[in-house]
This record gives sequence, C-alpha cells and structure tokens, in this order.
Amino acid sequence: ITMPKDTVVKPVNVTCTAPVNIAVVKYWGKRNEGLILPINSSLSVTLHQDQLKTTTTVASCRSFQEDRIWLNGKEEDINHPRLQSCLREIRRLARKRRNDGDSSVDVGCLSHKVHICSVNNFPTAAGLASSAAGFACLVYTLAKVYGVDGELSGIARQGSGSACRSMYGGFVQWIMGEREDGKDSVAQQVEPESHWPDLRVLVLVVSIAERKPVGSTAGMQTSVETSSLLKHRAESVVPDRMKQMIEAVHKKDFATFAELTMRDSNQFHATCLDTFPPIFYLNTVSRHVISLVHQYNRHYGEARVAYTFDAGPNAVIYTLQQHVAEFLQVVRLVFPPDNNNGKTFLTGLQVEPVEISEELKNAICLEPMPKGISYIISTQAGPGPRVLEDPGQHLLGPDGLPKPDA
Amino acid sequence: ITMPKDTVVKPVNVTCTAPVNIAVVKYWGKRNEGLILPINSSLSVTLHQDQLKTTTTVASCRSFQEDRIWLNGKEEDINHPRLQSCLREIRRLARKRRNDGDSSVDVGCLSHKVHICSVNNFPTAAGLASSAAGFACLVYTLAKVYGVDGELSGIARQGSGSACRSMYGGFVQWIMGEREDGKDSVAQQVEPESHWPDLRVLVLVVSIAERKPVGSTAGMQTSVETSSLLKHRAESVVPDRMKQMIEAVHKKDFATFAELTMRDSNQFHATCLDTFPPIFYLNTVSRHVISLVHQYNRHYGEARVAYTFDAGPNAVIYTLQQHVAEFLQVVRLVFPPDNNNGKTFLTGLQVEPVEISEELKNAICLEPMPKGISYIISTQAGPGPRVLEDPGQHLLGPDGLPKPDA
Repeated sequence: ITMPKDTVVKPVNVTCTAPVNIAVVKYWGKRNEGLILPINSSLSVTLHQDQLKTTTTVASCRSFQEDRIWLNGKEEDINHPRLQSCLREIRRLARKRRNDGDSSVDVGCLSHKVHICSVNNFPTAAGLASSAAGFACLVYTLAKVYGVDGELSGIARQGSGSACRSMYGGFVQWIMGEREDGKDSVAQQVEPESHWPDLRVLVLVVSIAERKPVGSTAGMQTSVETSSLLKHRAESVVPDRMKQMIEAVHKKDFATFAELTMRDSNQFHATCLDTFPPIFYLNTVSRHVISLVHQYNRHYGEARVAYTFDAGPNAVIYTLQQHVAEFLQVVRLVFPPDNNNGKTFLTGLQVEPVEISEELKNAICLEPMPKGISYIISTQAGPGPRVLEDPGQHLLGPDGLPKPDA
Repeated sequence: ITMPKDTVVKPVNVTCTAPVNIAVVKYWGKRNEGLILPINSSLSVTLHQDQLKTTTTVASCRSFQEDRIWLNGKEEDINHPRLQSCLREIRRLARKRRNDGDSSVDVGCLSHKVHICSVNNFPTAAGLASSAAGFACLVYTLAKVYGVDGELSGIARQGSGSACRSMYGGFVQWIMGEREDGKDSVAQQVEPESHWPDLRVLVLVVSIAERKPVGSTAGMQTSVETSSLLKHRAESVVPDRMKQMIEAVHKKDFATFAELTMRDSNQFHATCLDTFPPIFYLNTVSRHVISLVHQYNRHYGEARVAYTFDAGPNAVIYTLQQHVAEFLQVVRLVFPPDNNNGKTFLTGLQVEPVEISEELKNAICLEPMPKGISYIISTQAGPGPRVLEDPGQHLLGPDGLPKPDA
C-alpha cells in the first residue's frame, strides 16, 4: 500500500506568539552559567502583545533533513547552545511523557526534524528584551508541536534567563530556586493581566547610542566576579524587596510599586558601575529621563510615574491611565520629536494630547534634548503566549521554508 | 605711661599655606553631622602645593571689633557654623593649654578678634577639593596665631571632613574612630611625600557641566538615609580595602594601588546611583576618561594609570613618572585641546611631548571629544601645611584689611 504523497510530506505547522516582559525587580548575575540559574529572584510585568510580540512557527515533517531556524528573515545557526538546550529539553520531556503513557504526545513528530521561523513586531536590536519573547515563544511553540504542556518556564529559562517570565501574562516572579539542577528555578504568575487595568507602560526608545554596550551575558558574569555590592544586593536586598513588590502588586499600591521599581533599577545600574571594569548602560538621555521623572513626581508630591532601565539606555515608564497623557506631553516638551515623525512619535495605545499647566512646565527645569527619544511605544500589561489558530498566519509555507514576508 | 600708638594697634599677622588632597579610598557619609564623623575610614594623597594650595593670613589685633573673613577677594559670613566650629575649637584649645601653664600660648592674642583672608591658586568652584585645603589652612594658621600645636586634624575635620587629611603631607589616612565625641576621628600620616618619588598626579579639569550637581553635604546625607549599598560598603568593604591600600602604599605596588583606587572610585559613584533619588557626578567626559584608562591599561596588560573621581566630573589620574608623557599624548588624542589653548592645556610639572606608537593609537578605540577637557594640572605628592616666613606674603595689610590683590 502506498500512502498518498501529500499526507506524507506535508509539514505539521504550529504558530504561536509570546510577549516581552520588563522586570521591576531585576535579574543580574547567574550562579550557574550552563543552566542559567540566577543569584536572586526577580519580578516583571508582561507587556501586551498588541504592541510587542514574537511570532514563531514550528513545522515538523518526516521529509526534513535537519533542524533549521530563521530569525527575522535570516537563517541562523541552529547549533547555538541555548537553542539546542531548548530543543533537547522539550524533546526529552515529550519522550518521557510518551514513555509514561501520555497519549497527547505526538509520537510521529518525535523522530522528525523541525523548521523554526520567528519574527518580532518590534525592533530587534533596540534592547527591548527580544530574547525573552523569542525563547518563550520557541519553547511554547515546540511544546505545542510535541503535545507537551505543564511547567515549561524552566525550559524557557535555559534559552534566556528572563524568557521564563514571558511564559505567563500579567505580573510574574521568577523564583531563583535552591536546587543545583535548577528544577525549582521557575516562573510563577503573581497576578493575571486583568488585575491592574489602570497600569500603563511607555517604552521610550532612546535614539543616541553613545558607546558599544557590554552584552548582558558577559556583563553579568563580570559583575558576579568583581562586584561585592552585587553579592550584597542578591543576598540581603532583593529577598525583602521581592516581598514588598509582590505586596504592592497585590494591593495595586502604585506609589510603593513605583518607588521600589526606580530604586531597583538604580541599584542594578549601581552594581554595573561597581563591576570592574565598570559597565555603563545609562546614557545622557537615560539620565535626563530619570531627572524628568523625579521632577514630575516632586511637583505632585507623590510617585505618579516610575522609570526602569535594563541593560541598555531605553527607558520603560510605568504609570497609571490618568497620568499618561500629561506625562507624555512633558516628555514631548523635554524631548521635542523630529518634525518629520511628530505623528509617528507615539505608537501603540493612542493617547489624546492634553494641555499642561504653566506651574508644571516651570517645575520641569531641564534643558530640552531634541530628538533624544526617537519614538514611544504605549502599552499595558498583557497575557502570556498564545496559539494562533488561523493557518494563514503560519510563517512557514507548505514547502517548510519561510513565506516571502516572514 | 602711654604706650607708643603703633605697638598697640599693629596686628600680629601669620600666613600659612595648605594642600589639596585626593582620596583613593573615599569618604562618603557621616554618622554625626555636627561633629563630621564619617561612616568609614579613608585614605588620600596630599598634592603638591607648587600646583594647588590655599594661602591664609590670620591677623589678630586688640583694635579689631569683630571676627571677619575674606575668601578669594570677597568678604564672607563669619557666622557660618563650620567656621565657628574651627574658631571655637582652636580658642578652646589655646585657653586650655594656657590654663595648663603652657608658656608658648600667646596670652594677649586670646582676647583679640581676628581677621582672616584666604585665597586659592586654583579655580575654586571647579570641584578641586578647595574646602579641604581651605579649612586645613584656616586651622593651621589659627593654631600658629594662638601658639598651639599637636594634633589639629580633629579640629580641621569639623570644618570640612576631608580637611583633616590636608593637615599632613604624603599619604594620609583618616581613621574613622569609634568615640561618640569624635576625639579619635583623626588623620594620620601613612607615609611621607618623599616615600614614592615616581608617583605622578594629573588633574583633568572637565569642561562640560551637564547638570547642576548635588552638593556633597546634601548628597552624602541622602545616601546614608537611602542607600543600602553604602551601608554595606562602609561596614564590609572599606575596612579590608584600607588595609590593602596602606599595604600597597608601603610597598609602592602601583598595580594594586591603581586597581584599588579605580574600584573605590567606581564603588563610591555606585552608591551615589543607589541613592534615592539617584545622584550622578560622572558625566559623558568622565565616562570617556574611564574607558580611555581601561583601554590604555588593557593594551599594556597591566595597570599603568588609575582614575578617581570625587563629587564632580573632573578626573584625577595617578600614574608613574615613566608613563606620564605617553599617557598625556593619548589624552590629547582623545580630547583634542582648543587651538587657542594648546600651550596652556598642561600646567604644573612640565612634561616633554613624546610620539605614541600606531599600535597604541589603534588600541584606543574612542570617538575624540574635542575640548572635553579644558586643561590639565600636572603634579605629585607634596608636604602638609607650611608657615610663610616672608612678611611680604601676608594677604592682610597693616590696616587689617585684604591687600589689593588678595
């Protein structure tokens, strides 16, 4: 009996999306480089995928000769150790479950090679946590292909530490864990995305690249080796701060959430400066944003806006819906956008312009920096990874290769 | 009997000079604001007075109606609490010694008012530790007027913390002390200025003022209140570092001295960033100097040059005589001086220009910043305060008022 040819070679396609997350208690420093086990727990907000997401299609087919991957339109080396970690771990899990008699595992698939195609709907090299969304999406999609589910953040963690937090929506903690094998170093949802509907997030993409930054993997390794302040932070500061932050999120206590967020961002950058040689991720524009936020909050006598910076100069602002429009006007005042992109300066959730008072204008005593910020993405907390059911959205064609626009 | 009029009203003049000091283990944070007692010990190099000094004349006269002070040509408020602390403490010490029967104390003087006139031979508001030299000089000169000697750094400390270290030449530690009354919080010479003749100091005066900095008194108070990293630094990092630094100075071990100096500067600025709201003293030029030093040292595979920054953007460079000329050329390469001040770019100890190799030029991969550094003061370790014997150098005239050019 000869099987019809099309059923034999047609790949099984699964397409998923996954979100970016921005930490408010930062992860910096590994206790185990291979397994990506952190020296402290961390906590983040998952951003909405309407604004920032990775989309990944995984195709599995008997006829594929080898595993292959395309990222943002370019084929990349599938042998990258972290990619291999994720592939190996998901396949191991699938095999284990099949051997345990789980009928949901796709048995045929297990022996097939996969083609992976992944794209971001936001600039990749702009320091916007694309590896977190990317590895979360990869692991989530592979898991769907192989029919495995359950706790997957521990696998995403092995692709990129912070990717584990992108496996859930809303407010997510990555519990550092204690075990040497890392099995207890996993992400956990603290509150779902619906918990704090007023919370807004503005991503201020800084235009000036002052100097080549140190990559976060190399940077955190040097910090662990040389900064005594980082060790103190991990052991003595973060445990309490995690408790306070989780409490602030539960209570939707913005003032506490904001102050802890800013203090934690500053402390992370302080440990970078205490690294030898020192690492600088904040640039002139970043420091200007910091001043702006403190002047704004001081004017109102309360923390209405909070900044946080990852391993790059871009600012992420947390605020509440009722303050977004005014704060955006203040940002436009201090960072006048280019005439040509005045209309595209703000993307994402739209915000109606408002007038700002003379008192507020006078309270902000900062030299304007024209074009210091190139654009702003306005968003909110959002859900975790999702399966796209519409086959039209697959990034790989019936031939198992990226579609022309993927 | 009528005394001749001129012997009655002619003031007694004493003129002294005192040096600037630059810490290599930094002082930041007080445990007692009034007495100026620090939360950690510190260590500095006293710079040579041929390049940087304060000159102070104190005149004492029966006919003076009140204590008065002129700083850099302008009369200032004598009631400033820290000035009053120094005056009160010296007078108390003189009275105590007189009562103890010490014949060297000038009895007549004790009831007289004083006129004080003080000038710096370097820019005052440029963040060059002028208050350290200023208060050291004030206390030293007052002590000569009242005929008291012995341990005076504890009094200078009450004028400006780091002034206590300017009471000695060479390498000086300020031992934090333990007593609540501060009596054991004094400076002590670790090695005299003659100990390490090869050591050179370059003060790189940065031309760009990016933003109004926070004064060090307010800054360190906020740091003590808000930075948990500062507390850890003071308690757990500095005690060991002091021992290592003193050992490096004893041994003239430049590589260790340099690395500890850079690490300590970075850690001080890290605690400023961990302060809430954060404090930034380093600007773009400062960070460029830091990169330059690390690239230079990396090129040679050893620490030949070290930077340190106080509460401002100016860099102080420690290096050895044999590396000064080459390093200066590299600085000129990265910070090309203004054409107009090419000749006045370097002041102080003269250094013959040298050629630098193409390999070194290629190793320094930094965007040039024209005019980023406005000038450089080249100097070395120097002695402590001195009395000027030449009456022509008094800053106050026979009328007890500043001479025209003082």
